[in-house]
Amino acid sequence: MIGFIAACLTTFGFVPQVIKIFQTRDTSAISLGMYSMTVTGISLWLMHGLSIGDIPLIMANGVSLLLTGTILICKLVYK
Amino acid sequence: MIGFIAACLTTFGFVPQVIKIFQTRDTSAISLGMYSMTVTGISLWLMHGLSIGDIPLIMANGVSLLLTGTILICKLVYK
Repeated sequence: MIGFIAACLTTFGFVPQVIKIFQTRDTSAISLGMYSMTVTGISLWLMHGLSIGDIPLIMANGVSLLLTGTILICKLVYK
Repeated sequence: MIGFIAACLTTFGFVPQVIKIFQTRDTSAISLGMYSMTVTGISLWLMHGLSIGDIPLIMANGVSLLLTGTILICKLVYK
């Protein structure tokens, strides 16, 4: 239960960052290195989840990949 | 093994963001909501790790809490 709440917070925590970037189109203070590493790491988690067929791992990392991938693309597009 | 690399990438991914903030003192594009949620979520993961005595969970989330806590404090201090 505590793990479920923790997973929701760390996964959906990226939502306010995505909204902020969409509103301001400002990614100047966002680290390209951070989101490159995070997107790679989450992709590996997702692959791991898929290989062992763990649904919570697949869902949490699928959503996280979508959100962090969006931030990474915005960073590359808006500079 | 894939989980270990994934955990390292998602944990240490915050390092370039911390370095960037220290260098520029610019947190304008950083979302306060994101880091509030992330710090809370990681704190819960750490509590969960401590309660079940899981060393990898404690170490990964201890480091993550230190890094995201630093980013959150910088956001509050530098505005």
